Amino acid sequence: MAENDKSSVVGVDLGGTKILAGVFDEKLNCLAKTKLSTKAVRGVEAVIERIARCVRDAVDEADLNLKQVRAVGIGAPGASDPQSGTVLFAPNLPGWTDVPLKKLLEKELSVPVFIENDCNIQALGVHEKELKGRPRHMVGIFLGTGIGAGLILEGKLYSGFNRTAGEIGHMVLEVGGPKCGCGNKGCFEALASRTAMFKRIQAAVKEGQKTLLTEMLGPGLEDMRSGDLRKAIRRGDKFVEKVVEEAAEYTGIAIANVINLLNPEVVVVGGGVMDALEDEMLAIIVETAHDYAMEGTAKDIEIIASKLGDDAGITGGAVLARRNSK
Amino acid sequence: MAENDKSSVVGVDLGGTKILAGVFDEKLNCLAKTKLSTKAVRGVEAVIERIARCVRDAVDEADLNLKQVRAVGIGAPGASDPQSGTVLFAPNLPGWTDVPLKKLLEKELSVPVFIENDCNIQALGVHEKELKGRPRHMVGIFLGTGIGAGLILEGKLYSGFNRTAGEIGHMVLEVGGPKCGCGNKGCFEALASRTAMFKRIQAAVKEGQKTLLTEMLGPGLEDMRSGDLRKAIRRGDKFVEKVVEEAAEYTGIAIANVINLLNPEVVVVGGGVMDALEDEMLAIIVETAHDYAMEGTAKDIEIIASKLGDDAGITGGAVLARRNSK
Repeated sequence: MAENDKSSVVGVDLGGTKILAGVFDEKLNCLAKTKLSTKAVRGVEAVIERIARCVRDAVDEADLNLKQVRAVGIGAPGASDPQSGTVLFAPNLPGWTDVPLKKLLEKELSVPVFIENDCNIQALGVHEKELKGRPRHMVGIFLGTGIGAGLILEGKLYSGFNRTAGEIGHMVLEVGGPKCGCGNKGCFEALASRTAMFKRIQAAVKEGQKTLLTEMLGPGLEDMRSGDLRKAIRRGDKFVEKVVEEAAEYTGIAIANVINLLNPEVVVVGGGVMDALEDEMLAIIVETAHDYAMEGTAKDIEIIASKLGDDAGITGGAVLARRNSK
Repeated sequence: MAENDKSSVVGVDLGGTKILAGVFDEKLNCLAKTKLSTKAVRGVEAVIERIARCVRDAVDEADLNLKQVRAVGIGAPGASDPQSGTVLFAPNLPGWTDVPLKKLLEKELSVPVFIENDCNIQALGVHEKELKGRPRHMVGIFLGTGIGAGLILEGKLYSGFNRTAGEIGHMVLEVGGPKCGCGNKGCFEALASRTAMFKRIQAAVKEGQKTLLTEMLGPGLEDMRSGDLRKAIRRGDKFVEKVVEEAAEYTGIAIANVINLLNPEVVVVGGGVMDALEDEMLAIIVETAHDYAMEGTAKDIEIIASKLGDDAGITGGAVLARRNSK
């Protein structure tokens, strides 16, 4: 690749615990990626410096230099204003209120930077790379520690009045249900996120429930991950199977709510939980969603799992960078 | 008005029980309106004939003739395809599957006809007449016998893949809650519609609950209407007050779900229940919605009651007619 060939872009996924950066070519192939912990407690400036370092490392890993990078696209948690390049607020990043991320990062990298909300950017990555930009209306739902969504309506990212659209994790599905981190009860996130499943398992174990997970991880269930649930289920743990099934059912109901309200052509489910538990969850999600969605409304609507996994964010970041720097 | 002045349009609201038609001038002032029962059981052809009669009567009432009408806009329940002018399916109108309403009505009236979903058209009426077309993103929620919504996103009516977007009445708010007409449990409509409130009251009365409503309407609660609930509350009936309060709370939660997901600038609540019980419900709806919506997300979002009442549909029909016949 020539020194002055600027066909590469970098996508960044800024999370509460880790930063991912990926270098992509014109065809959205990933040339290299790097990961760094966020260290959010060190403050805004330190995190910006870490994002820049992660980008530099990825570019170097791809045998390129920053001068060959056309633009950087970054997904940040919380609400962002893509126009001004500002992170408005990010509950998972202490101190991140009205942070001019675009400006600060451009100063560090001398490359144009574009920002968006993290779930929006994941949806963008899935829409462009996995679905070839086909569906006019798509909802991407990402199941992880928390639950979020990105909406593509009329072919475009939809972000709403305060640029916070897609907060599906706090859709109440069960009035009076389990307490959520947001202070309310019965939110989708409090019923079906990784956190919700882990809490249910931990509470049951405390009350004497037997599970292979304590054999695998010790009585304190240290460092439990979604993959451990999959392993326990495959080894025949009916209790863990039931917990995961229930989370899948709630996910199906949330998707039915979205189908009834927004009638998208495709609903894509992604995130760490889906990556680990697709075989255990997807069929139940699809069946429950069709059970609860109105007849006629759900006709020919696809509900699928994303194959992009952790790469959805960096891929979407690359799409954002590419679109804005053409 | 000159014989050949075609500045008037007619808006029609086709419901499961009644047909409303209104004649509007260029400034969306209503010149005359008429009402006819739908008589849906008599079949599609008979209903079309009744719609045509209702339109003719309204035009005559306004001292005009059909030749002076530029276009007719009609809101039909269920899913409609505005492009082909077809009612795709309408659960409340027996036999209405793939009915070419536009074509059939144009044959009867010799005036261009345009169709849309009834809740979409109500939202359009509210957006254009009450809010002067201002909010870029607006959700109109209509509380009546059932509950539906119309979405205006990016300044335009949003209808989704199967043209059924806005089925908010079947958003599950309480998994395992009261049974809904759709076959599921815990839908918004089964918790907060007029039907839901009446069912709760009737069931409680059967179990010995005392209420002024039995004094007012007799022990069978014949012909109970939303206005009766208002009267009972104003006369101090704490039981009815509680039923209405709970419906308002569920409505607030549903609105919070919509705010979290779609982040509209304005949420307008209309329909017969709101017309009758605005003073009793609106403050509770607003408070609950802000309680349940994410901080930051609900910032500066207005939740208001529509003043258009029953006229929302015919007004929206007029807007549709006007837009399509310019």
